[in-house]
Amino acid sequence: MFNETAYQLGIAPSGIRQLFAYGMEQAAKIGAENVYDYSIGNPSIPAPKAVEDAIKDILASVDSIKIHGYSKDAGIESVRAAIAENLTKRYSMEIKASNLFMTCGAAPGLIAVIKALLRNKDSEVIVIAPYFPEYKPFIEANGGKFVLVPADVGEFQIDLVAMEKLINKNTVGVIVNSPNNPSGVVYTEETLKDLGEMLDKKGKEYGHPIYIISDEPYRELVYGDAKVSFIPNIYRNTVVCYSYSKSLSLPGERIGYICVPDCVDYGKELYAAVSGASRISGHVCAPTLMQMVIERCVNEKPDLKAYDDNRKLLYTELTKMGYTCAMPDGAFYLFIKAPGGDAIAFSEKAKFEQNLLLVQGDPFGCPGYLRASYCVSNAMIRRSLPAFQRMIDQYK
Amino acid sequence: MFNETAYQLGIAPSGIRQLFAYGMEQAAKIGAENVYDYSIGNPSIPAPKAVEDAIKDILASVDSIKIHGYSKDAGIESVRAAIAENLTKRYSMEIKASNLFMTCGAAPGLIAVIKALLRNKDSEVIVIAPYFPEYKPFIEANGGKFVLVPADVGEFQIDLVAMEKLINKNTVGVIVNSPNNPSGVVYTEETLKDLGEMLDKKGKEYGHPIYIISDEPYRELVYGDAKVSFIPNIYRNTVVCYSYSKSLSLPGERIGYICVPDCVDYGKELYAAVSGASRISGHVCAPTLMQMVIERCVNEKPDLKAYDDNRKLLYTELTKMGYTCAMPDGAFYLFIKAPGGDAIAFSEKAKFEQNLLLVQGDPFGCPGYLRASYCVSNAMIRRSLPAFQRMIDQYK
Repeated sequence: MFNETAYQLGIAPSGIRQLFAYGMEQAAKIGAENVYDYSIGNPSIPAPKAVEDAIKDILASVDSIKIHGYSKDAGIESVRAAIAENLTKRYSMEIKASNLFMTCGAAPGLIAVIKALLRNKDSEVIVIAPYFPEYKPFIEANGGKFVLVPADVGEFQIDLVAMEKLINKNTVGVIVNSPNNPSGVVYTEETLKDLGEMLDKKGKEYGHPIYIISDEPYRELVYGDAKVSFIPNIYRNTVVCYSYSKSLSLPGERIGYICVPDCVDYGKELYAAVSGASRISGHVCAPTLMQMVIERCVNEKPDLKAYDDNRKLLYTELTKMGYTCAMPDGAFYLFIKAPGGDAIAFSEKAKFEQNLLLVQGDPFGCPGYLRASYCVSNAMIRRSLPAFQRMIDQYK
Repeated sequence: MFNETAYQLGIAPSGIRQLFAYGMEQAAKIGAENVYDYSIGNPSIPAPKAVEDAIKDILASVDSIKIHGYSKDAGIESVRAAIAENLTKRYSMEIKASNLFMTCGAAPGLIAVIKALLRNKDSEVIVIAPYFPEYKPFIEANGGKFVLVPADVGEFQIDLVAMEKLINKNTVGVIVNSPNNPSGVVYTEETLKDLGEMLDKKGKEYGHPIYIISDEPYRELVYGDAKVSFIPNIYRNTVVCYSYSKSLSLPGERIGYICVPDCVDYGKELYAAVSGASRISGHVCAPTLMQMVIERCVNEKPDLKAYDDNRKLLYTELTKMGYTCAMPDGAFYLFIKAPGGDAIAFSEKAKFEQNLLLVQGDPFGCPGYLRASYCVSNAMIRRSLPAFQRMIDQYK
């Protein structure tokens, strides 16, 4: 009756959301303190106080028609200028307001860039496992071919040898997501340099640039000494898709941007195509009040102590028990090798026997692994440790 | 290099936006008081005070993580329940929270419904002239065929005889926009009944429903005794796309909903397809703070006196001078027959000789007409009257 792709996506239950819903039901039955819910990546630290102050200040000082009125599709000039200044300072690359396009979060930004790059029905976009599962429908339902690079299950960097073999004349872009969901790993500067050199070489070989689409919602969520490179500094044909969902804990407010730096080949044309692609997805402007909030909070940093404490506690305790995990330098995920090797069996057992909710790695393109979102209370982690112990004991 | 459709839409200048930009430039040169800018449909009355009060109340009483956190893709349950209750009361049809899907404004809502209905590459969507120009890219760039019913230039109702001839086995939907942009006309109950009966008959003939997509941003902007019918009461296969942009003067905040009432054939499947279509356009959820604002302001009504005063003044004075206009019962547009018949020549002359900015009807599918957006100050209208007089004098 209806568009089959849209219908199937509408009825397809997201495994993560299903697990989260199960956790809520169990909590109602046996008490929230007895359910260890690591299912969902919803920030558990509040937005900085500066956000609330900014909203109040805007209401008190700006005309209502301006606060809530349309902005240009690319966003309010002064907001983009403030973000550009912040980026320029931090990454020693001149970014201008005109390089930025404000979006309703990272998802529509990514889709606009993907759509802009899909020049014909044979166009291919490369994704690196493990990956955020929505990339697949974002590419396929918008007319592109989804090409998957298998995971480097050692270090969770990028298997460049495998990727190089997958590149052909139809390759238009590669999605890079670092810090990574679900692995929590940050790609090293070396990995990104090698990636950039390879893409440069292949681009020359095929006579057109192969763009990196850098999906960066977790850019500011990084711990210890880990460093998140600004990829345009390493590979010039990089378009950045950013979101304030995680960095300012504003996931529901739908605010982010696309950055097409001047160094990008055919950057002006790509920016125009991104703007046109946004328009046919229903973009009119990013929410105006939130744009103004970002202008006032552009230099705010998230208070990561809670996440970092969780990260250390969970990583240390689980590895002590004998679990193997990727080194989680960023985001708020721990990617755990399933004892016994069968992540589906393990997660079902953990769910039904221990009320321990871990997401299976299969939809992330990485079977045999489990994702734990540690944006939870530290107390919940402590309470959950005996359940983790009981689970691994069964596999010893 | 890039997706050609997206690129062309990205570089295609919108005539309305261009005219608006020209007005700003002229204002800087010769003084704002000497430019009569009727180009753009940006609400000129502020949001009701209840909106500001609601924001402050939410900040003071709701936990920050909840205010700014993700909501379900369909929206916050209590918000949808409040809207459903309001609709049920006003339109004597039971609407439930589960019939509603919160969107980032009307544009992504319309696109989601259009995409959901486009079952294959031959699918056609009918649009009635004069029409909001974005309907064309919304349909075509998402893979559908745009089929135009010529304007009924007498009353600006619907030429049903012409429409019936355009319906065939590939017709999946008809976009209805009443109160209408750009004519300001409200379709009568009789027009809608006749339309419904015809669509019902043709649907039976072709063995599938032909849905009405009712685009209703101007639903509450109606003057005098005019009545805006709730179309699902007249034709059951109607999906409503609503926005708070005009009714609460919140166009920048991107908040609205899709309503698929229970009376719609295959309504559950259509709702699922709409949800899937939203997902591949980058919808995650509607802005959460604004969703909560809507819950608190659902019974607010816009203070239309300013628009109504403008409407009466402009309509009365222009018809007195000899202009012919459609009877503007709703929205904030007056659709004027161009003296001399050539709207392009008239609007260029008005622009360069009189600094009087009127939008040409051609992109609305109605050549020979001019759109005046009267969401401006009453004083500007008064100042502009001599310019209108001087223009019509040239054609006498």
